[in-house]
Amino acid sequence: VKITAASAGLVDKGGHSHYMAKEIHEQPEVIAHTLAYYIDPAKPAVRERDVKLAKAFAEATSLTVSACGTAFYAGMIGKYWFEKLARLPVEIDVASELRYRDPVYPKGGMALFISQSGETADTLAALRDAKAHGQTTIAVVNVPESSIAREADIVLPTFAGPEIGVASTKAFTCQLAALAPLAIAAGKARGFVDEAAEKKLCAALLEAPRHIVEFLKQEPKLRQIAQGVAKARDVLYLGRGANYPLALEGALKLKEISYIHAEGYAAGEMKHGPIALIDENVPVIVIAPHDALYEKTVSNMQEVMARGGKVLLISDKTGLDAAGAQVWKAVEVPAADPFITPLLYAVPVQLLAYYAAVAKGTDVDQPRNLAKSVTVE
Amino acid sequence: VKITAASAGLVDKGGHSHYMAKEIHEQPEVIAHTLAYYIDPAKPAVRERDVKLAKAFAEATSLTVSACGTAFYAGMIGKYWFEKLARLPVEIDVASELRYRDPVYPKGGMALFISQSGETADTLAALRDAKAHGQTTIAVVNVPESSIAREADIVLPTFAGPEIGVASTKAFTCQLAALAPLAIAAGKARGFVDEAAEKKLCAALLEAPRHIVEFLKQEPKLRQIAQGVAKARDVLYLGRGANYPLALEGALKLKEISYIHAEGYAAGEMKHGPIALIDENVPVIVIAPHDALYEKTVSNMQEVMARGGKVLLISDKTGLDAAGAQVWKAVEVPAADPFITPLLYAVPVQLLAYYAAVAKGTDVDQPRNLAKSVTVE
Repeated sequence: VKITAASAGLVDKGGHSHYMAKEIHEQPEVIAHTLAYYIDPAKPAVRERDVKLAKAFAEATSLTVSACGTAFYAGMIGKYWFEKLARLPVEIDVASELRYRDPVYPKGGMALFISQSGETADTLAALRDAKAHGQTTIAVVNVPESSIAREADIVLPTFAGPEIGVASTKAFTCQLAALAPLAIAAGKARGFVDEAAEKKLCAALLEAPRHIVEFLKQEPKLRQIAQGVAKARDVLYLGRGANYPLALEGALKLKEISYIHAEGYAAGEMKHGPIALIDENVPVIVIAPHDALYEKTVSNMQEVMARGGKVLLISDKTGLDAAGAQVWKAVEVPAADPFITPLLYAVPVQLLAYYAAVAKGTDVDQPRNLAKSVTVE
Repeated sequence: VKITAASAGLVDKGGHSHYMAKEIHEQPEVIAHTLAYYIDPAKPAVRERDVKLAKAFAEATSLTVSACGTAFYAGMIGKYWFEKLARLPVEIDVASELRYRDPVYPKGGMALFISQSGETADTLAALRDAKAHGQTTIAVVNVPESSIAREADIVLPTFAGPEIGVASTKAFTCQLAALAPLAIAAGKARGFVDEAAEKKLCAALLEAPRHIVEFLKQEPKLRQIAQGVAKARDVLYLGRGANYPLALEGALKLKEISYIHAEGYAAGEMKHGPIALIDENVPVIVIAPHDALYEKTVSNMQEVMARGGKVLLISDKTGLDAAGAQVWKAVEVPAADPFITPLLYAVPVQLLAYYAAVAKGTDVDQPRNLAKSVTVE
């Protein structure tokens, strides 16, 4: 293992009780580092670091995305961004499925793999398979010396620094901070994002660290709400669009460190089965920024409330003003461009999981049964 | 509502305690009806009913599949079949996401929608959107007079008869019985399935009803095992490949009617988080026919057992002989061609959910909070 200058001094808890808390708080800084690598703040515009990359996107017929666990949910958010900004059909699958599925890799396709450690066994195997099928491979990794970085055609580093807590937090948001400029670059290369749009999207992204700093002031409130969540045996998370993967990630985070059985769902799927679980003991955490999907998500939320479910609504001021009156708890996130909301709303779901685990007294940084990087299949 | 001759006389419980039990037991018959519509048993080969369909598949660049709830899981199984047999890239998404995502519909693409009632609001809206984007639309429906059937370019009926139980059983396996011959037909049209392969695949499918009749003799054993499952607060279902969607469907079924928080996972994803939930109180139901993925799934199962988890292994004789010694419970399904295992393994997961609900005394046919067909968004 090579110790880089950037990682030195980042390995104690920095006054926090757990690495996870420290890593949550580092996010404004490490997201800013990652964004600064990909975006020139003076314009603002995506830096043209890699001519090969722009050319590959301009000619691409498809993008296959694969990863495991939390990195997979970052990829799912990326899918929404790539389709919207670059009009590129995106296939996504967990690496343990993709590698055994013999997927149809189109000629001229690209394949993107995401891994904090860069050593995830299934992801590495999926990358090799994609490469063998002639795909141009891109890797988003936090460890630039890793196997996945070495084997990919194009490497996009994240600058999260060493992540010690087993439950990924800052590595996840830094993956988003690398994927979002990549989606803008792809949109530009393919002629769907013009200069004005690029400027607007980049400016929005550069606001993310500031919004997170602002949001973190509400930590005591999140801690208090998490006491209530910690009492639950079961929790559901709902979202739509690019915030649906965040519902999955929020549930995974809570599962991993508090051992509460949490599950994420596309809000529109609730009434096709899972709503049968709802009673007054199951908190339902609704991630609903006031965007184009807000009304639909709130309508699903109201179905939950009509059946006695207690709702924690995470939204912005407009969203809470419109529908926050009857909910069990409300959390306000700074209003922002809908493009960047997954980056911001990641933080409340991390804090909820963290403080629920603290309330339960579980081993936050070393949860039972889990390893930090999964180098076996 | 038009009453057809086929549906007359199918609306009492036929000596069963619940419609759901009756509908589970009807499966060999209704699957056989559905298969007989699509497969000529004399050859055996897929019937060439629809020249338009073969032409569309021959020229297709992609297939988009969408549905809600249980029908979505049938579509997920279909994805594995279409990719394997027809080498057609398949995009799949729940209808409530697809319709709002502004997906990239490739020129010359096909889009497939699945709905028992043919009236599912989100699925209908997604179909209209795909049609507006120039896709050739196919509908798999159980009600041929429905809106989805009327609006699709090509309709593939299932012959499940009226399904009264809110939790879908026979409609699901009949969807599979329509999708499997369709995947064979697509493979034929695209030159990836030759006459010998077609014969073998069709012969395997035609065996499914007989295998299910055979399996249903084990109902008393499933009832006994379900008593144990009914005591659990949380249950996990694991599978790989085409049996991964079945893990999701098994979990949905248990949720819907027993209100036990069950969750399905791709077996390879367990170690990326959910394994933290495992303790001696969480039964883990592993769906693992002895196929190419068996060893990998069993290795994930052993990780669960090493952490104190109690496993219910559903496999065939070879699979149980190889790894069934240490498990909590074992269920044997008749050995069959790997192509048809999702059809067979659907039945044990249905029976487990049914008898767990009976043991808990919930309202099996009318579970709380749920409606049979979801005609609102």
